[in-house]
Amino acid sequence: MISSAKNDTMKAVAKLKRGRERRRTGQILVEGPNLFRAAVDAGLLPKIVLATETDTATAEVTGRLGVPLTLVTESVLASVADAAHPRSPIAVFEQPGFGSVPDVNIVVLVDLADPGNAGTIIRSAASFGWAVGVTPHTVDIWSPKSLRSGAGAHFSLPIVVIDDVETTFSGLRHTVVAAVVHGGEAKVSNDGPFALLVGSEAHGLSHEQVAAADVALTIPMAGGFESLNAAVAASIAMFTLS
Amino acid sequence: MISSAKNDTMKAVAKLKRGRERRRTGQILVEGPNLFRAAVDAGLLPKIVLATETDTATAEVTGRLGVPLTLVTESVLASVADAAHPRSPIAVFEQPGFGSVPDVNIVVLVDLADPGNAGTIIRSAASFGWAVGVTPHTVDIWSPKSLRSGAGAHFSLPIVVIDDVETTFSGLRHTVVAAVVHGGEAKVSNDGPFALLVGSEAHGLSHEQVAAADVALTIPMAGGFESLNAAVAASIAMFTLS
Repeated sequence: MISSAKNDTMKAVAKLKRGRERRRTGQILVEGPNLFRAAVDAGLLPKIVLATETDTATAEVTGRLGVPLTLVTESVLASVADAAHPRSPIAVFEQPGFGSVPDVNIVVLVDLADPGNAGTIIRSAASFGWAVGVTPHTVDIWSPKSLRSGAGAHFSLPIVVIDDVETTFSGLRHTVVAAVVHGGEAKVSNDGPFALLVGSEAHGLSHEQVAAADVALTIPMAGGFESLNAAVAASIAMFTLS
Repeated sequence: MISSAKNDTMKAVAKLKRGRERRRTGQILVEGPNLFRAAVDAGLLPKIVLATETDTATAEVTGRLGVPLTLVTESVLASVADAAHPRSPIAVFEQPGFGSVPDVNIVVLVDLADPGNAGTIIRSAASFGWAVGVTPHTVDIWSPKSLRSGAGAHFSLPIVVIDDVETTFSGLRHTVVAAVVHGGEAKVSNDGPFALLVGSEAHGLSHEQVAAADVALTIPMAGGFESLNAAVAASIAMFTLS
């Protein structure tokens, strides 16, 4: 039983809360029973698993997978975790690889900045059977906060890196749909599959990105307020296109 | 210029981060230029306004309204604020009063627990021109986190306390719609206005609440994942009923 957060393994695990360390190592931090189960159910094997003594469910899983389990105290678990109220276990996994663009609906996060929004959109995408694309300047979708907002969805859908939004879909049969706050169509009559482009919270999509899309989509808003949360807007757009 | 967070006024303002203090005083904390502007634009008068010396926009507003402005240092502002990266100003307002149920679409937060979800739903409601109802056990919608997620929407729509969901709408012409994860209709053909009941993140609506509704609504999900964020699900339901 490890009772000190100064143990070398504990220090290495805690460092994965930082994006730079995740990029350097290619590893991610998976916290809590629900995310841990989602990752394992997706066929991923944990490299490190920290759990408290009373967490018998995790011991059962590591026993079945044949991977080592490290018992830690509640206070060590809390010091390693990113969550404010961490739950056992905390595990380290290799970051899943990125594939190529699948021939299905895909929502592309174009320079999204908020990890909670990114995770929530990934959760909606998994619920509607969509894939997810991320541009190189989108926030790290493998951060603890994004994973929490995703509720396990990250491990259940294809995730693709889209280096250049304008050229990527030119050779594919996707209808490219730009989500815009004003001036777009309320309904898209084109055939799918769709590539739905969602811009950053602060700046939206560029004029070039909107112009290069096949159609622009605007969610009709009857209220005088006209300001949807970015994850809500993206999710409604996916819903209307599904 | 106040440079100490131990000043009595600063201590009183900082206390408003706590729900108990907000309930005791009937006052709320409004942080940052966007929320401050939304509250003022709604016709509310601030009781206290703290701003940094460089925040000339706030000085212009307090001058126009004829209310006092207290200059504070950046570090005092940070110590008083709830936000991790606070922006000037920080203001104290009386909590807006609750009205009676209006004869328009209304989304009712039934024991919702997450302040971010509550604020995001209020933001969507304002965008779609809906009112908002809250049950007594719903999380405090006037918390700093809920206000941040609302992006100013709290000040632009009617907010109503609904003591008893089942009886409140019996004398009104609203069609009561229960949002349920499984087993509801994909479309509602009844006429509006609608009262959309949204249950807590962990438990949803009770069987009694669903049974007392005129119709149950389920958002169709084609993916194998089937787990939308509560604010996303409520927003899509409002969108389909609008």
